[in-house]
Amino acid sequence: MRTNEMLQAYPATMNLDRGLLADAVEAIVACAQACTACADACLSEDSVADLRKCVRTDLDCADVCDATARVLSRHTGYDANLSRAVLEACIAACRACADECERHASMHEHCRVCAEACRACEAACGALAATMS
Amino acid sequence: MRTNEMLQAYPATMNLDRGLLADAVEAIVACAQACTACADACLSEDSVADLRKCVRTDLDCADVCDATARVLSRHTGYDANLSRAVLEACIAACRACADECERHASMHEHCRVCAEACRACEAACGALAATMS
Amino acid sequence: MRTNEMLQAYPATMNLDRGLLADAVEAIVACAQACTACADACLSEDSVADLRKCVRTDLDCADVCDATARVLSRHTGYDANLSRAVLEACIAACRACADECERHASMHEHCRVCAEACRACEAACGALAATMS
Amino acid sequence: MRTNEMLQAYPATMNLDRGLLADAVEAIVACAQACTACADACLSEDSVADLRKCVRTDLDCADVCDATARVLSRHTGYDANLSRAVLEACIAACRACADECERHASMHEHCRVCAEACRACEAACGALAATMS
Repeated sequence: MRTNEMLQAYPATMNLDRGLLADAVEAIVACAQACTACADACLSEDSVADLRKCVRTDLDCADVCDATARVLSRHTGYDANLSRAVLEACIAACRACADECERHASMHEHCRVCAEACRACEAACGALAATMS
Repeated sequence: MRTNEMLQAYPATMNLDRGLLADAVEAIVACAQACTACADACLSEDSVADLRKCVRTDLDCADVCDATARVLSRHTGYDANLSRAVLEACIAACRACADECERHASMHEHCRVCAEACRACEAACGALAATMS
Repeated sequence: MRTNEMLQAYPATMNLDRGLLADAVEAIVACAQACTACADACLSEDSVADLRKCVRTDLDCADVCDATARVLSRHTGYDANLSRAVLEACIAACRACADECERHASMHEHCRVCAEACRACEAACGALAATMS
Repeated sequence: MRTNEMLQAYPATMNLDRGLLADAVEAIVACAQACTACADACLSEDSVADLRKCVRTDLDCADVCDATARVLSRHTGYDANLSRAVLEACIAACRACADECERHASMHEHCRVCAEACRACEAACGALAATMS
């Protein structure tokens, strides 16, 4: 990903720390991809009936992460209230998805990897949110 | 839209009021479309340099609305915390976009219509959020 | 939806027929919502194991429709090649999803309604694509 | 990104080459992020009025890439026709965006970086598409 290069090339002032921002965007994008893949892997398991909630939480998390990555990739006309509300929704989605995936992690490797991606995303978003006044 | 028909066809119990849910989903989807179109219309205005923040807010609102419409279209493994956090981000996005579009509404009809769509979405999401325990 | 009002408010010339465009955008947006809801309803069915392919096709169709609705909502710097390629992907997604949902339509009302939404979308996109030189 | 780990954890047979698939998904996701950031950077340039088409093409490319990354992250009920149509739309979007960004690359570093991301994505999608029977 060219997240850092794009942040360096932004032509105006930026309200957030570039390092924390790049970390968050990359963690969010990786989480969205893992969640989409985990939902699909759950769907192909023999035990799909036991994984309904996991599929649902994966899909929600992917959708919220995709929207959050986009909002955080924009700096023009920055609005701290909106960025904070979106980050909080993203943290809630990652936490819910990690909690659910961890319940299946010992049985399904894709849930284990996805839970890791969600926890990394939750942490990176939390670190960024903590700097928002 | 077939929002009501799809809600009636859902095979399990649902945690939210079907009428408020259908109203919210349809208002969100209409808002997302208006915001995407408004961002593009702003881009074609002679005065695009005065509309930078409007384009940005439109794009954020479209992205957050699209994610919210998807989360609210799912009922399997309902999680009130997540739905509430997503709705709150959606309300924040609609409010920010309506505020910005209203500043240009007397000059640009697309901003006036988009502000209306955002206010309708903010209201429908607020009515639904008020029922979430 | 305020699709027509937004099309009328676009400040520059438009390369496609406004009526066909509005019909297509509204059919696409309705199809995306129905597909997201159908995937979730399938997930809550006792027979979810027989509906794996249906969930997958629903999810693909929702994603492709959402991207297509956005591309068609923009008119600035119109590029017929890109619009055509996106419309063709949308038609392929709607056809695949309608074919799959129709296989379950007699058993599951949500599949029946979703197939209708996909066929309506396929037709509206086809009518628009036919006018693209 | 955990693209490779998630591909390894998929519990059923896969119809495409895992290496080419992982390369394509990662290039697409990186391209989507660069395009979202480039659209926003263009919006903050003094010369935004000369970058209207670039913003539009960036936005289209981000939307089409996001949908494509999701479709390619699913393997359950694989449909070669749909995957090919989506990949072709993605290649068309990347080519259009690279062409446009390259026109501004000597003036704007974000356009130069974004064009690189689009060309890398176009190549990775082309390599994958070539293996689809």
